[in-house]
Amino acid sequence: MYRCLIANRGEIAVRIIRACRESGVGTVAVYAKGDEKSLHVSLADEAICIGEANPLDSYLNIERIIAAAEISGANAIHPGYGFLSESPTFAQKVEENDIYFIGPTRRTMEMMGDKITARQTVHNAGVPIIPGSTGAVNSVEEIEEIAKDIGYPVVLKAASGGGGKGIRIVKEKKDLEKSFKEAQSEGKKYFNDDRIYVEAFIPVAKHVEVQVIGDGKENYVHLGERDCSVQRKNQKLIEESPCAALSDERRQAICDDAVKVAKASNYRSAGTIEFLVTEDAYYFIEMNARIQVEHTVTEMRADRDLVKSQLYLMKYDELPYTQEDIHFTGHVIEARINAENPERKFQPSPGKVKALHLPQGFNVRVDSLLYPNYIVSPFYDSLVAKVIVKASDRALAIEKLKSTLDEMVIEGFSTTADFLYAVLSYPAYAEGDASDVDIKFLDRHHIIKGAS
Amino acid sequence: MYRCLIANRGEIAVRIIRACRESGVGTVAVYAKGDEKSLHVSLADEAICIGEANPLDSYLNIERIIAAAEISGANAIHPGYGFLSESPTFAQKVEENDIYFIGPTRRTMEMMGDKITARQTVHNAGVPIIPGSTGAVNSVEEIEEIAKDIGYPVVLKAASGGGGKGIRIVKEKKDLEKSFKEAQSEGKKYFNDDRIYVEAFIPVAKHVEVQVIGDGKENYVHLGERDCSVQRKNQKLIEESPCAALSDERRQAICDDAVKVAKASNYRSAGTIEFLVTEDAYYFIEMNARIQVEHTVTEMRADRDLVKSQLYLMKYDELPYTQEDIHFTGHVIEARINAENPERKFQPSPGKVKALHLPQGFNVRVDSLLYPNYIVSPFYDSLVAKVIVKASDRALAIEKLKSTLDEMVIEGFSTTADFLYAVLSYPAYAEGDASDVDIKFLDRHHIIKGAS
Repeated sequence: MYRCLIANRGEIAVRIIRACRESGVGTVAVYAKGDEKSLHVSLADEAICIGEANPLDSYLNIERIIAAAEISGANAIHPGYGFLSESPTFAQKVEENDIYFIGPTRRTMEMMGDKITARQTVHNAGVPIIPGSTGAVNSVEEIEEIAKDIGYPVVLKAASGGGGKGIRIVKEKKDLEKSFKEAQSEGKKYFNDDRIYVEAFIPVAKHVEVQVIGDGKENYVHLGERDCSVQRKNQKLIEESPCAALSDERRQAICDDAVKVAKASNYRSAGTIEFLVTEDAYYFIEMNARIQVEHTVTEMRADRDLVKSQLYLMKYDELPYTQEDIHFTGHVIEARINAENPERKFQPSPGKVKALHLPQGFNVRVDSLLYPNYIVSPFYDSLVAKVIVKASDRALAIEKLKSTLDEMVIEGFSTTADFLYAVLSYPAYAEGDASDVDIKFLDRHHIIKGAS
Repeated sequence: MYRCLIANRGEIAVRIIRACRESGVGTVAVYAKGDEKSLHVSLADEAICIGEANPLDSYLNIERIIAAAEISGANAIHPGYGFLSESPTFAQKVEENDIYFIGPTRRTMEMMGDKITARQTVHNAGVPIIPGSTGAVNSVEEIEEIAKDIGYPVVLKAASGGGGKGIRIVKEKKDLEKSFKEAQSEGKKYFNDDRIYVEAFIPVAKHVEVQVIGDGKENYVHLGERDCSVQRKNQKLIEESPCAALSDERRQAICDDAVKVAKASNYRSAGTIEFLVTEDAYYFIEMNARIQVEHTVTEMRADRDLVKSQLYLMKYDELPYTQEDIHFTGHVIEARINAENPERKFQPSPGKVKALHLPQGFNVRVDSLLYPNYIVSPFYDSLVAKVIVKASDRALAIEKLKSTLDEMVIEGFSTTADFLYAVLSYPAYAEGDASDVDIKFLDRHHIIKGAS
């Protein structure tokens, strides 16, 4: 018998609990003070308080989570997304305690967490990476040589970087030395790692990612791509599948390449390979070694439950399907409803749910942590609901998502719903091939709430 | 531009409004006094009060509904199920007012409403009917002749019967005369029609029905069958698709026969052909010339929106698909959540929604009229939510529906949810081929709430 601790909160914790229940896996919720009344706490078989609201004291506290697993007799841990989900240290601690970690192994996480190793691994697997250095660069002269090939601007990146730290875009040769030193020192400061690598600057591209799942041994499957180009400050707002701008040949090539990356990293469980896609090329950018917010888009298009697939792999040491079993239907779009105020630069707007009607119906899925009178916490991610719809083509899916958002009632705080409705209504978004929708789309177009 | 009046209330009115919104069709709700705060009223573009709570003064009042259509400029009417949905008079009045009736023509309704004509039509189409008379019987002697062929008991039925009126089961020859006269006089009394026909008595069978849709001209499509054998006093409680007890050959034969019936009646729009299925035979019993409560089961299995298909037919005078386009995946089960008290003989238990959490998730659909603080009316059908799930096989679908029901919270009045959970948990129901699950299943098995 498996008993799974969910080291997370919010909608993803609820979603994981559902999959566990359907799979006959017992559930243990953990929660921070203030989260007592969260939906994941009431749905789990058992719930354990692990500390204060500040995530460092609770959802990011490895020792307390391991202790909660021991106390509750959990023999599996699902990390969800965010928090500790991509921490090799956490994965290692979990396995050292003879608890199954529902995700990739520590080794895979380390390999993919080190951007230089990841680049090399992916390159060796025959998958295109952004042109640049093959490893760390050690001198300005070395960068100059590379820049002769790839042209300016070049981008300097810290090997262990993340969150925008340790990155410098260099437009001219004369700025190289200064930027190199700055990137090195930021890398050292924030990640204790001053290794730097070089990439060409890709000014504009679509963000396309491929959902994969692997058994870590021989069976690696892709479940199609997602176009997540509608972003605001690197935060995805709308995700869809398929990517309307890809030809079938390019789609197949990207998906095949994603499988190569999964294989090359002995990937176990569900993960995502992210690519930048331009008019005539695509490049691996990174791997997300966890389940993602937008996995739901893939679930509806491929008609496969990804979290249940992870649990199946845990129970039977094999995937429930091979590539040949995966088929796609229709067009799926997801809108992320955040408790944010678009009229005030999307600042978080936590608050109490005063009225609530979540949409329902044919090919409509809403994953949410909300219920009437629930108080959205200011301490965590602002995502309060994912609204996902499927229709037979993109135009119909856009219309369906618009009517579905129209039906939704969330009162008590501001949300991104109306803003997303405006994006969906925006002609440049709705265009058939969506060629204009790249990661700078929201920067170029001044879309205001209520516009249509 | 179409503008559709929905001549109904409750979850089906909400469901129709959703399909209209997605199809760019305007919506007009009608409501009785006391229904002002119903979900269908708030979701429609416009809402018109048509009378008192008593359905005779509102949802069954043809003139008021036609007047509401005229006032609001509606050029289409969707009748939903129940109320006026199968009234040829209503359909006729609607069309006389140059309003499109979303359903079959008056002629088809009349043909299928007259049981004798329906039997003859179906028989002539080469589809098996329950052995018995081919038309009305005029004397006891005629019935005796038929009984020699089909054996006792025989069933006498009024040609215009319904709701159990005008039906007599006759076990022996000596009771024929008395029963014949009684059936005739009930037919005369309740339906102003004393024509009687004779059928063999089928003691036990499964209730299997086939969803069809037709353009009334040349394209008639089936969307697979539903097994609705779990019934209590002829009220369906659980519906599923496919029917686990049918071989592929029998399934194909029944579905093909349903299409023959649709063709023979020039059926336009969505309808259902009902069959009784025994170990070695199946028989047409009746046609439901309307959308049904359980159409949702078919929608999930065939991945087609039936109400949107009806609207498509209205707009373009053709169906959006042919038989070749219809494909099925997985196993779908629906539980009807009624505001009834299973511990008090399922008596209606209307009341105020004090707490509400409707389940969500992958391949879970909930169609409901409930929202927090809504007051369920005692005047209408007790159905408050349909919970439908899909999984890859029957056993997994049962488990999924159980966990989904487990997640649901409806407080403020009794519902059938726990009872249905007990049915789903009952070994004889869960058995692979479900051979024991016929329309007498709930009579034979004393399933109590909370049992497992």
